[in-house]
Amino acid sequence: MKRVSFESDYIAGAHPKVLQRLVETNLETLSGYGTDRYCESAKEKIKAACGCPDAEVEFLVGGTQANAVIISTMLRDYEGVVAAKTGHVSSHEAGAIEYTGHEVLEVPQTDGKIEAAVLKKYLEDFYADANHEHMMFPGMVYISYPTEYGTLYTRKELTELSGICHDYQIPLFLDGARLGYGLMSGECDLTLADIAELTDVFYIGGTKVGALCGEAVVFTKKNRPCYFMNSVKKRGALLAKGRLLGIQFDALFSEDLYFDISRHAIEMAEKMKALFKEAKLPFYLESPTNQQFIILEDRQMKELKGQIGFGFWEKYDEGHTVVRFATSWSTTPEDLDVLRQAIQI
Amino acid sequence: MKRVSFESDYIAGAHPKVLQRLVETNLETLSGYGTDRYCESAKEKIKAACGCPDAEVEFLVGGTQANAVIISTMLRDYEGVVAAKTGHVSSHEAGAIEYTGHEVLEVPQTDGKIEAAVLKKYLEDFYADANHEHMMFPGMVYISYPTEYGTLYTRKELTELSGICHDYQIPLFLDGARLGYGLMSGECDLTLADIAELTDVFYIGGTKVGALCGEAVVFTKKNRPCYFMNSVKKRGALLAKGRLLGIQFDALFSEDLYFDISRHAIEMAEKMKALFKEAKLPFYLESPTNQQFIILEDRQMKELKGQIGFGFWEKYDEGHTVVRFATSWSTTPEDLDVLRQAIQI
Amino acid sequence: MKRVSFESDYIAGAHPKVLQRLVETNLETLSGYGTDRYCESAKEKIKAACGCPDAEVEFLVGGTQANAVIISTMLRDYEGVVAAKTGHVSSHEAGAIEYTGHEVLEVPQTDGKIEAAVLKKYLEDFYADANHEHMMFPGMVYISYPTEYGTLYTRKELTELSGICHDYQIPLFLDGARLGYGLMSGECDLTLADIAELTDVFYIGGTKVGALCGEAVVFTKKNRPCYFMNSVKKRGALLAKGRLLGIQFDALFSEDLYFDISRHAIEMAEKMKALFKEAKLPFYLESPTNQQFIILEDRQMKELKGQIGFGFWEKYDEGHTVVRFATSWSTTPEDLDVLRQAIQI
Amino acid sequence: MKRVSFESDYIAGAHPKVLQRLVETNLETLSGYGTDRYCESAKEKIKAACGCPDAEVEFLVGGTQANAVIISTMLRDYEGVVAAKTGHVSSHEAGAIEYTGHEVLEVPQTDGKIEAAVLKKYLEDFYADANHEHMMFPGMVYISYPTEYGTLYTRKELTELSGICHDYQIPLFLDGARLGYGLMSGECDLTLADIAELTDVFYIGGTKVGALCGEAVVFTKKNRPCYFMNSVKKRGALLAKGRLLGIQFDALFSEDLYFDISRHAIEMAEKMKALFKEAKLPFYLESPTNQQFIILEDRQMKELKGQIGFGFWEKYDEGHTVVRFATSWSTTPEDLDVLRQAIQI
Repeated sequence: MKRVSFESDYIAGAHPKVLQRLVETNLETLSGYGTDRYCESAKEKIKAACGCPDAEVEFLVGGTQANAVIISTMLRDYEGVVAAKTGHVSSHEAGAIEYTGHEVLEVPQTDGKIEAAVLKKYLEDFYADANHEHMMFPGMVYISYPTEYGTLYTRKELTELSGICHDYQIPLFLDGARLGYGLMSGECDLTLADIAELTDVFYIGGTKVGALCGEAVVFTKKNRPCYFMNSVKKRGALLAKGRLLGIQFDALFSEDLYFDISRHAIEMAEKMKALFKEAKLPFYLESPTNQQFIILEDRQMKELKGQIGFGFWEKYDEGHTVVRFATSWSTTPEDLDVLRQAIQI
Repeated sequence: MKRVSFESDYIAGAHPKVLQRLVETNLETLSGYGTDRYCESAKEKIKAACGCPDAEVEFLVGGTQANAVIISTMLRDYEGVVAAKTGHVSSHEAGAIEYTGHEVLEVPQTDGKIEAAVLKKYLEDFYADANHEHMMFPGMVYISYPTEYGTLYTRKELTELSGICHDYQIPLFLDGARLGYGLMSGECDLTLADIAELTDVFYIGGTKVGALCGEAVVFTKKNRPCYFMNSVKKRGALLAKGRLLGIQFDALFSEDLYFDISRHAIEMAEKMKALFKEAKLPFYLESPTNQQFIILEDRQMKELKGQIGFGFWEKYDEGHTVVRFATSWSTTPEDLDVLRQAIQI
Repeated sequence: MKRVSFESDYIAGAHPKVLQRLVETNLETLSGYGTDRYCESAKEKIKAACGCPDAEVEFLVGGTQANAVIISTMLRDYEGVVAAKTGHVSSHEAGAIEYTGHEVLEVPQTDGKIEAAVLKKYLEDFYADANHEHMMFPGMVYISYPTEYGTLYTRKELTELSGICHDYQIPLFLDGARLGYGLMSGECDLTLADIAELTDVFYIGGTKVGALCGEAVVFTKKNRPCYFMNSVKKRGALLAKGRLLGIQFDALFSEDLYFDISRHAIEMAEKMKALFKEAKLPFYLESPTNQQFIILEDRQMKELKGQIGFGFWEKYDEGHTVVRFATSWSTTPEDLDVLRQAIQI
Repeated sequence: MKRVSFESDYIAGAHPKVLQRLVETNLETLSGYGTDRYCESAKEKIKAACGCPDAEVEFLVGGTQANAVIISTMLRDYEGVVAAKTGHVSSHEAGAIEYTGHEVLEVPQTDGKIEAAVLKKYLEDFYADANHEHMMFPGMVYISYPTEYGTLYTRKELTELSGICHDYQIPLFLDGARLGYGLMSGECDLTLADIAELTDVFYIGGTKVGALCGEAVVFTKKNRPCYFMNSVKKRGALLAKGRLLGIQFDALFSEDLYFDISRHAIEMAEKMKALFKEAKLPFYLESPTNQQFIILEDRQMKELKGQIGFGFWEKYDEGHTVVRFATSWSTTPEDLDVLRQAIQI
């Protein structure tokens, strides 16, 4: 039986419609560095989708790059970024934020999320501390949506975080590397427009949602850093053939493709969840999005590995491991059939 | 009459054969971060093309990124990189090298090249100076091939530079963003294998030679920095879908495509040169590669602009400007026909 | 009654004997940048005191500067420094380590110390994790002696940490900003020579132990980073009149002054502890060195503040606060008399 | 005959009156980190001396540190600092500016100075260049007064530079490591108040003008970077015993000591110049301040070295070398007597 992989949501190339647009436009003469008409068109479509005509949209190549560029260009010299201990910027970017000279100020998390009360206390404590001159100021709050554990902030939760950030006059930054999979989840009570309203900057992940590469950064409050393109270049992040990003996002935001892709992945994920329940494999936590975290006995893990690709997440205890199964635009019902049979272990 | 552009060598998408390979492999399941079989295969092909089985090959997205990553991971803390005043790293990377905490130590240039005697004197003077503790050590030499002015080092010149670097035990780094256009020039007396032998690290430009993006870095002396992938990630330069780079370079290094593409551009450039000579438009300097630098009267420039795309290079004097015309894999004989008629000015 | 301060151990100038040496040598002509004979002499005396003739000694101006210089010159690009969550580098240096592009990898602490088992597990887990490329490597372990809570590692504990670092081939770095106060504590079972043997680099704090400024960094294993002076200059940390540091340390390491100063502060601290016990003021934790942490009711704190200087440490609970009282070379029995009366609250 | 040194202006300790103040205040209890009353008093005296009641004054330890802190906290991310090729920040700080992630944008110099026309052309050319996104913006102009060659800007020249900076809305930063020696020169037509008015930030050098260490940074236009103390700490530049700087500058700005010290050095320099003229030793250039640059035959240099300390500056030609002789507050008429006899070579 053929091997099937749920190892991550970046194991296939681009959605065929995205690739098709690259093919169709390939011979067109376009100016470099993101000044072409497809970048322009994609930006307009994204602004419309966000219901935010004043938004400023910029394209970057990858998620860690986007995080580092956004954080380091928006923070002031003496500021760090507040993030959950499990946040991508805290632990899985090989020091990319620190490389820019800023500290990640870790706060405790619950199912991958920062609770409003936790954030509030952190900020209050900071300003109550007499040793300000010896600490980095909290200058931004970083959250991911969905989180690294596939969980989602509710509208109420996001509104609270947004309010706290507003009170302290620091931007709220939402890492949307998997944004589509959040928005299309059955449990999501937020729209793209809500996110644009409640955050100060966020990005719409392309790499994990149908593109070969690319993240669309949205500055929602006319707050794009001055001469942003120079800062991007300075970080080695400016693409000569910026068309590669513009054309893909133009395709993703034509005829709701981004949302259709995401919805499909969520449908596949829901079916996958049902399979795990049926097989009585325990969930590490409840995730309403495209990533599912399952606790496997080491014996099961070993057996399954031959036929199914999945991601190692963390040791659970002596004898058990948390593993991750991810769906994406490329997951098929046939893949799930293989999975169903394979997990009878 | 249709408008034709020679503005740069990155105005079109990918060479059709490169794009075709992306389409063919699109649905394959491949692991992330450059660990897939196409990256592996491309690396082997490049090592073979370099005649350097011990080489270590890594893929990065763009040229400025490659420069910053290579320089900052190979230099020691107290070292800077020696480069020509006109070197790309000196003046056109928006501070990307300085961003890594290293200085670009500028030396005078001749037609975009560093002369061996100039380099030798610079190094001798440095070590003769009593104030070492107050200066950055020259820890690497950066050259481009072709240079920013389209010129080429001869085998003799490169051998001399290589010898000096060897004497001072500092690596010689060759920026090959347009490497193919150098190797296929009629004036080139070097092979890819020679370059691998005479330098310590170099890269084979993809972005400007047929790819959508991508540069293949070749560490020629088993000198790839330790845990290079982590350093790449730390700089936000690690691509999740590393396949995008691997597949393109695998295509470029199949059936000599990289060289064929380059040869075509050089043929087009030679014809373009003939047209300029015929039209008696003066050359700023003699370039044997795909970039040609022409001095235009401001009146001519204005007239030409309507029909032909070209790049502003620098003011020549009151009334004259140096402009650049570049060919690439996508330049056609028809484009040159348009140019011929347009430059009757 | 006169106000007396125990706010910190840097509230007075230099020990009179140290200052006297600055006065005596003031008009001597000495070369700059630490190349003078007093720096030389001080280095020799420190090497002798460490029983480590091969040690390499360098002087820096302050503690945060020393931490940042040592950590950033000894770590490799892809490495971070492991430290207790309460370590000075983790939380009270305003991002000085991150400014150098390295992450502080926080581990849990017990009374300000890193337990060997905690360190071992951290390192084991790191190497067991499949996602190495996305994390900073633990490249050094940072501890303070005494810790930020005034506690001390026992010889057994330090030997264990040293063994683990040795097994993983990463240097053990000991921040000795208050080293003297540790070595002279009644509970200390280590000598300066033991510390030189068990660590790879440490520094002997001058600022808090009798000098106007200055820390003496000791590289114990012939492991001073290459061209260290250049790296110091690059960080803006090279003093033109290096004599200021050399002369002070020469004085401190003449006739055991450094140890006598420290012993005096410990005697004063022991008497202070007795006063607190007598007054039944609760200790936050048991500290055998010159810093004592007391839990005060907010009412007590308010009353005391008028007459006694002390440091705010952290909120204990609603109604109580942890405050710090520090002794130093300049603390007198008369100061303690004032304290005794003042704490009858 | 005794050996006498003119090697630099930092070969002696502090002016006796400065040291005396350190002795007198040594046992006073003072708060840390520059919050003590002597820092406060020194700041007020400096503001008064500058005729600039709104100025914001901060103390740092050394010159390279001051340059790096000022430049990196005042520049924006995408900006570099314009400096003469011979400027201290360009060539003699071991990459300290680049370490902060900013480029030094070198312009040609004349006798160590930037001419207004040169600066104007540089700025005009920058904004005329179409490739802004690929270059660092000129975000500040750095000059030294006196320059590294001991020369002085006239009031007219400084006014012109100031005007250009104002037009381009970038700050003018004056490195005054030897400011006193400039102000007291017979050729100086500027007052301290003029400098405060014409620049946006400058510093008053202490290290080379009578202090053990210390530079007083003056932000003249209410433009001190926000939370400057945190940024200083982040760079490892915050002194725990800030009193060391405050007390010294309080002494230097009491009863005109700073100016008296400087005037004395200038008188000694004038006498030294006369001696060189008398001995017919050629000057490398005309310097009206405390540094004199003389061209010596290598034979002369060798002979002189035994008895007189001086600084190597640069090779002049085969057989000749430029050397530097500096006076300072500590130079005596007796020193000059020794020099007079020694240069009969």
